[in-house]
Amino acid sequence: MPLLRDLTDDEARAALVLKWGQTEPGTIPAWVAEMDYAVAPPVLDAVRAAVERGELGYPRDDRAGGELGAAYSRWAARHFNQDVDPDHVQVTADVTVGVRIALEVLSERAPFVLPLPAYDPQHGLGAITGLEQWGLPVDPDGDGYALDLDALDALFARGARTLLLTQPHNPGGHVFTRGELEGIRDVVTRHGARVVSDEIHGPLVLPGAEHVPYLSIDGTADHAVAVTAASKAFNVPGLKCAQILTTDAATRDRLLTIPWAQNDSWGSLGVAAALAAYDHGDAWLAELIERLDQQRTLLASLVAEHLPDARMRPLEATYMAWLDLRAYGHDDPAAVIRRGGVRVSPGESYWPGLTGHVRLNIATSPDRLTEIVRRMGAALTDRA
Amino acid sequence: MPLLRDLTDDEARAALVLKWGQTEPGTIPAWVAEMDYAVAPPVLDAVRAAVERGELGYPRDDRAGGELGAAYSRWAARHFNQDVDPDHVQVTADVTVGVRIALEVLSERAPFVLPLPAYDPQHGLGAITGLEQWGLPVDPDGDGYALDLDALDALFARGARTLLLTQPHNPGGHVFTRGELEGIRDVVTRHGARVVSDEIHGPLVLPGAEHVPYLSIDGTADHAVAVTAASKAFNVPGLKCAQILTTDAATRDRLLTIPWAQNDSWGSLGVAAALAAYDHGDAWLAELIERLDQQRTLLASLVAEHLPDARMRPLEATYMAWLDLRAYGHDDPAAVIRRGGVRVSPGESYWPGLTGHVRLNIATSPDRLTEIVRRMGAALTDRA
Ligand SMILES: Cc1ncc(COP(=O)(O)O)c(C=O)c1O
Ligand SMILES: Cc1ncc(COP(=O)(O)O)c(C=O)c1O
Repeated sequence: MPLLRDLTDDEARAALVLKWGQTEPGTIPAWVAEMDYAVAPPVLDAVRAAVERGELGYPRDDRAGGELGAAYSRWAARHFNQDVDPDHVQVTADVTVGVRIALEVLSERAPFVLPLPAYDPQHGLGAITGLEQWGLPVDPDGDGYALDLDALDALFARGARTLLLTQPHNPGGHVFTRGELEGIRDVVTRHGARVVSDEIHGPLVLPGAEHVPYLSIDGTADHAVAVTAASKAFNVPGLKCAQILTTDAATRDRLLTIPWAQNDSWGSLGVAAALAAYDHGDAWLAELIERLDQQRTLLASLVAEHLPDARMRPLEATYMAWLDLRAYGHDDPAAVIRRGGVRVSPGESYWPGLTGHVRLNIATSPDRLTEIVRRMGAALTDRA
Repeated sequence: MPLLRDLTDDEARAALVLKWGQTEPGTIPAWVAEMDYAVAPPVLDAVRAAVERGELGYPRDDRAGGELGAAYSRWAARHFNQDVDPDHVQVTADVTVGVRIALEVLSERAPFVLPLPAYDPQHGLGAITGLEQWGLPVDPDGDGYALDLDALDALFARGARTLLLTQPHNPGGHVFTRGELEGIRDVVTRHGARVVSDEIHGPLVLPGAEHVPYLSIDGTADHAVAVTAASKAFNVPGLKCAQILTTDAATRDRLLTIPWAQNDSWGSLGVAAALAAYDHGDAWLAELIERLDQQRTLLASLVAEHLPDARMRPLEATYMAWLDLRAYGHDDPAAVIRRGGVRVSPGESYWPGLTGHVRLNIATSPDRLTEIVRRMGAALTDRA
């Protein structure tokens, strides 16, 4: 019996109160990064058991190491062939909070670099932390997704001190190779700058690519911190638990000595879910990756049929496809598509001012995806 | 059948992974603010139902109003006789996060006043927000707990711009009267200053006192925000959901227009728990208050018997008693008490530099409380 189970529309509407619950009836939701699959059985069972134990109070206050550190370390060894010291695994509420803490605590009071497009809440981090935020555009006309290292070098030369790296990338779908990461490291070390690496999509690398943790690259220990979570791959972001990873003792200790209230908002059930996901989630995750790989293949043929003028970069990871729909001549294709019965995310959310792009969530059933792309094609070409 | 149920030691150890789980076996935990009672049946059932629906993903993104605003509004009308506009109820992850946001977004970049003693994580808020933090001592030799309004006036005159009020007070156990709150308002308005009112203990007012929300006082709308939650009264702080309350449209809108990532970490099950607590928690809460009232009476007789030289202010709210044990001659009585088999919170955590005080958590069974105070007395008087 397969472990991965598709939610029916009714189940999805009850479970996914944002993605489905806040999309108008009749419209298929393909926007926010949540999957239309039932929670992995071992994760659900662990949450149920924690609820029955009454574990709804404060989680343990060991911010680093502990059971979670050990479970993450085992996971990283199996999945990324990475040697993680459990005591270098810190807990936090979610990845965005972890990134914010890293910027607040570790970064110099100087601009940070945000490659564009970028996951939408990341755009607020400058205003929140009081740091200036400098965009580093990734050429929308390029063939693949590659950071322009000369441009990065120039930004550091002009005074930027931190790179906010997202790898694998959302919404770019790109998995950075070891060579690319080494190139980034070289630029960063030349300037004595820092990296905050958002690796929440690390478990969602599709066949053909491999996730290389930035911290597994030589010479990154003293300038980098990574933030990740089980919440995205296992579809439980509402439970609030993520991990901040370091490889350098001084960096770790700086993060551990911040005031308690700066990092005390993780959830008790988030910890239970993460433990189960990291220790017992492999079989479910393998089925998920297989499904996402099939959805990726299906998407390619659906796009060829219904959206032949769309441009799509290779989808190497995540379940979000970044579609260049400029050929269809709409500044805001997401709005046109929504009138046609599908809710996708406007490209503008990831790159203010960029027109003609959308992000499409493919983590659903083949039937829904087929209908989604059919409707998108009809809407954009006005054959509705 | 009573609704309130005492946890056995084994149940408490499984459920309360911080309070019990991180206290050495054989020692009775009476420190962190959690209660040794089973979660209220309607709250537990709501959490179970949400888990079975699979509601573990992102909560709805309406930050204000909605079901939660409506439920809180009904609750405030019933419990505090307060008229709350549901659209003035905003959601956040926990009370400390809400207070931090209020300081970051609403307060001038100028010192804030923290009455002492103060809930321990509040001591970190200055470092976190970058605001200077000025203590306002509440005389440890005074008969009751009263803010020194002349001293507050002087701090504002010297440049402080915000008062962080905690009412009812933890660890002071004090419930501010309408008259006291009006006095505070007068000083604050004289200086055009602000108030952030932490009212998480509002539901935990014991017979004889009444919780008056600061925002229900005339003339506070344009200078105050309150932060509260169901999590403390209903013992579910691990689920991550609190409420930020305003009465003024401009204040509300400033909080609503902050970047998404500054306030997006509340939990899906925290919302489910809060809805159930606010709409269906009254009967359980009434039993809880009855029990805490009994524990308060029991405590008084136990203290008279075992700690006759202790001084205790009237415990008007909360389940935390603030004990002045200076007469026993130990700088750190919590350490002495811990060696005697009870873990209480050192007074130093609430007022750096203050010796001879402890905070004692009485939210347990009568038997445990009896043994706790017996052991405290034995430890402090060396009769162990
Ligand atoms: C790159 C990236 N970072 C962070 C997040 C959100 O993580 P969290 O909910 O833990 O803040 C997402 C969600 O899709 C994401 O794509
Ligand atoms: C005055 C006060 N504020 C806030 C809190 C904690 O609330 P939260 O867990 O929602 O941050 C407590 C917990 O005891 C408290 O006493």
